[in-house]
Amino acid sequence: MAAPQGNMYPDYPPPLGGEQEKYLLNSLKDFSIAHGLAVRPTPSYVSPETDPAVALATTAPVTLFPSLFPRVCFEQARSVIGAYNELYSAIASDETWLGEIIGELIEIDDFMANLWNVHMKVKKEGYAQTLNLGLFRSDYMVHVDPSEPQPSVKQVEFNTIASSFGGLSTQVSSLHKHLLSIGAYPESISSIVSPSSVPPSPSVPELAKGMAKAHEAYGKSSGGLQTCVVFLVQDPERNVFDQRHIEYALNENHGVRTFRLPFGRVLQDTRVDSDRKLIYTPPHTPNRQYEVSLIYFRAGYAPSEYISQEAWDARLHLERSAAIKCPSVLLQLAGTKKVQQVLATPHSPHLKRFLPNEKQATEVLKTFAPIYPLDTSTAGQEARQLATDPATAARYVMKPQREGGGNNVYRKAIPELLKTLPETQWPAYILMEMIEPPAQSNVIFRNGESQKGGVICELGMYGACLWRQGEGDGQREVLENFDAGYLLRTKGDDSEEGGVAAGFGAIDSACLVDV
Amino acid sequence: MAAPQGNMYPDYPPPLGGEQEKYLLNSLKDFSIAHGLAVRPTPSYVSPETDPAVALATTAPVTLFPSLFPRVCFEQARSVIGAYNELYSAIASDETWLGEIIGELIEIDDFMANLWNVHMKVKKEGYAQTLNLGLFRSDYMVHVDPSEPQPSVKQVEFNTIASSFGGLSTQVSSLHKHLLSIGAYPESISSIVSPSSVPPSPSVPELAKGMAKAHEAYGKSSGGLQTCVVFLVQDPERNVFDQRHIEYALNENHGVRTFRLPFGRVLQDTRVDSDRKLIYTPPHTPNRQYEVSLIYFRAGYAPSEYISQEAWDARLHLERSAAIKCPSVLLQLAGTKKVQQVLATPHSPHLKRFLPNEKQATEVLKTFAPIYPLDTSTAGQEARQLATDPATAARYVMKPQREGGGNNVYRKAIPELLKTLPETQWPAYILMEMIEPPAQSNVIFRNGESQKGGVICELGMYGACLWRQGEGDGQREVLENFDAGYLLRTKGDDSEEGGVAAGFGAIDSACLVDV
Repeated sequence: MAAPQGNMYPDYPPPLGGEQEKYLLNSLKDFSIAHGLAVRPTPSYVSPETDPAVALATTAPVTLFPSLFPRVCFEQARSVIGAYNELYSAIASDETWLGEIIGELIEIDDFMANLWNVHMKVKKEGYAQTLNLGLFRSDYMVHVDPSEPQPSVKQVEFNTIASSFGGLSTQVSSLHKHLLSIGAYPESISSIVSPSSVPPSPSVPELAKGMAKAHEAYGKSSGGLQTCVVFLVQDPERNVFDQRHIEYALNENHGVRTFRLPFGRVLQDTRVDSDRKLIYTPPHTPNRQYEVSLIYFRAGYAPSEYISQEAWDARLHLERSAAIKCPSVLLQLAGTKKVQQVLATPHSPHLKRFLPNEKQATEVLKTFAPIYPLDTSTAGQEARQLATDPATAARYVMKPQREGGGNNVYRKAIPELLKTLPETQWPAYILMEMIEPPAQSNVIFRNGESQKGGVICELGMYGACLWRQGEGDGQREVLENFDAGYLLRTKGDDSEEGGVAAGFGAIDSACLVDV
Repeated sequence: MAAPQGNMYPDYPPPLGGEQEKYLLNSLKDFSIAHGLAVRPTPSYVSPETDPAVALATTAPVTLFPSLFPRVCFEQARSVIGAYNELYSAIASDETWLGEIIGELIEIDDFMANLWNVHMKVKKEGYAQTLNLGLFRSDYMVHVDPSEPQPSVKQVEFNTIASSFGGLSTQVSSLHKHLLSIGAYPESISSIVSPSSVPPSPSVPELAKGMAKAHEAYGKSSGGLQTCVVFLVQDPERNVFDQRHIEYALNENHGVRTFRLPFGRVLQDTRVDSDRKLIYTPPHTPNRQYEVSLIYFRAGYAPSEYISQEAWDARLHLERSAAIKCPSVLLQLAGTKKVQQVLATPHSPHLKRFLPNEKQATEVLKTFAPIYPLDTSTAGQEARQLATDPATAARYVMKPQREGGGNNVYRKAIPELLKTLPETQWPAYILMEMIEPPAQSNVIFRNGESQKGGVICELGMYGACLWRQGEGDGQREVLENFDAGYLLRTKGDDSEEGGVAAGFGAIDSACLVDV
């Protein structure tokens, strides 16, 4: 997010001659489509009149080369996946603690207030399901601190809902390995990139396995219905193949029946029966009913999706059902930046509370960039000073507590924005020290065009955690806790927002290098 | 090709309600792209200005349902694959016999004359390679003869060059099985279609295996170069994924290096060295040379591709090289309809010559529809009578000897055309009794649109055969002879020409039924 640090590999990727670029692009375009590394095209690429049936697809935005990534950083991020699974399952299980944190935001953030309200209503009635599934993605950037001997990863955010690109990431590492194997890269690359330096990402089978474990733990329908997993989706969804690959793996590897349910159709197509089982009736087979074991949220995560009371009714409807939610409202709330902030506030006592294992806590702590509240606490007062002074603000990013991105404020824009905001609204933001990534380059192919330039990479580590909530706060039994692959997401370093689907980047794979 | 006979399954496929059709189509569109069952769109679908980089793709033309196909016919066609491999390898090995057959056509068919000329030039110099690879596809229709208790298959044509759709057929049977497994078909279908009734088509791995066997038999480069397989292709090629799937299987299953070489670039990018090794220099790595073990022709099969002397020079250049050709000129010529005709002319002695095994010959003979020459032989005189009388011509199709389709003449149009042709040109055609297929229906999805209606299915059986040519005519040693999957190609029954890529049909899979 900051100006990148000195480029350790200024010659990477090597320049491409005309014929070489043509060969590389043709190989990439064909391999991607042949392997489902695809998206539906944007309306600016293909107008709806050209393709009213939505039958066209194109290569998902990808990098031409695997980006170089310090091996020590990759291993660091991988080594804490299990600890993060522990941490966030513990946080989501501690309603009292979470309530205190969220309580501070409710007055200034309607979205969180409404989410909390959904939880409170279900709590009053009593939760009908104690099983919880988290399919997490912890996102990092490499941080180069000139005073340290080695780079390290620093967490950008922790996603507890709708973590995307796990369905395509597996194909991107395959693509880059394929391009390497067919000699599509200049030969000079061989001193840096080898087949073993690009780790495969088993995100498709592992995320599917996480869902299969939840489905299995849910058990059989007491009413004799067939059980199924429901993917809660946006409609239309350009990134549909990302989701479909996981769905197909769930079908093929585990024999689990799956359906896609647009968020806007929840109340029409499902009902909660007297035992609070969630019953789904597919519109195409109105005489056939299924009992939903698991709802996997790929929709319903952003405030913009809750434009009507009906959307909140639908969320409550799902939350009070006996289906396992991936995630529950509490787990979604656990992923708020406010939680990240209180964990990463220097000398915070909270991390130890949830991660009693001292070694785990120490390793997780190392992945935090210092994060300050903008409230009236001691740390908050300190942060307000840093944020209002343009000289110090230049090393910080100010982020809203909400999910979804798009509203981060950088550097000298921070004091300017704060001048326009009443101080009562300042606690809706957190202040985070900028991570200083290394300078590097790549070529991004998207919408049929390639663009070469400086890039910034974000490494996402997927983790899967299934647990059973106990009676008291924080009481739980972890049934499954495993790694689920990785994502490298790469964007131009002049763009200050992430999100490949939103149009600012590409999916990538990591070429591990020793630094 | 004739008006279909009575429909044995008038209720198949069942009608689809609005929601059901939507579910089926969404499932089909997503699964196909996720699994590379794709083509590049036609210019009428997507204009070149919309997608100058050719990065868009769409679902390959497919049927919504597997078409019903008599099990007895499928087994009949499968049972003769090995015999057909024997037959055509024997024909291509008998230059004297083939020369006599082709000799009759040379004066009236420039394309064959030129092909034969290529062979004669290489023969004069001496062939540099004795190994031959045939990747065949024998195409059949079901023939319902009211006087017979069971339907049987009758051969439409035998392809010895550029047999297409083997790369996509594997995915179509997977698609139909998937749609069945997720309940995308109306439940009433379950009395006819079950997972075991749709045979998988292993055409991708088996065709790749055929090439791998040839590559292996070629051996190592004596000059220390890396060996490779070259796919000779048209450029541009919309059906590229069909070819790519086989290429990827060859890479992944067998570790064979592959390149795509446009037919128009043969003379620029390859040379024949003093040992007549074919040396390929990829344009993108001009300093790196490869020795070509096998040239797989997906181009160079049609007269329209030989518009310049350079194209013929290129063909000669390849033929005289030591690379294994799939196919050689002689094998391409063996696939001419004239050969099919002389084999299928009633009481022909030729079949026994090439298939001394009587049982094999008998089974192959059963798959022939009677075919007559239009020359001045006794059978030809008989055929001329049948063809010039509109009453009898109505049961026949007249086909040019050349490959490629597009010029068949049907029924009453035959006498009309013959009136306009001098009799000296009549021998360029053969007369074939129309095959009378059963009436059936399906829904074809192509270019984003679905069309329901009566269809005609053509079953293609792939076979692979590798042999070493001996010294004398017909002398050879067969090294490999195996089945290589199937293709079902389905077109509207009002269309009288085949060819999915040409815009008249769809790829399908067979649901075997007992009749």
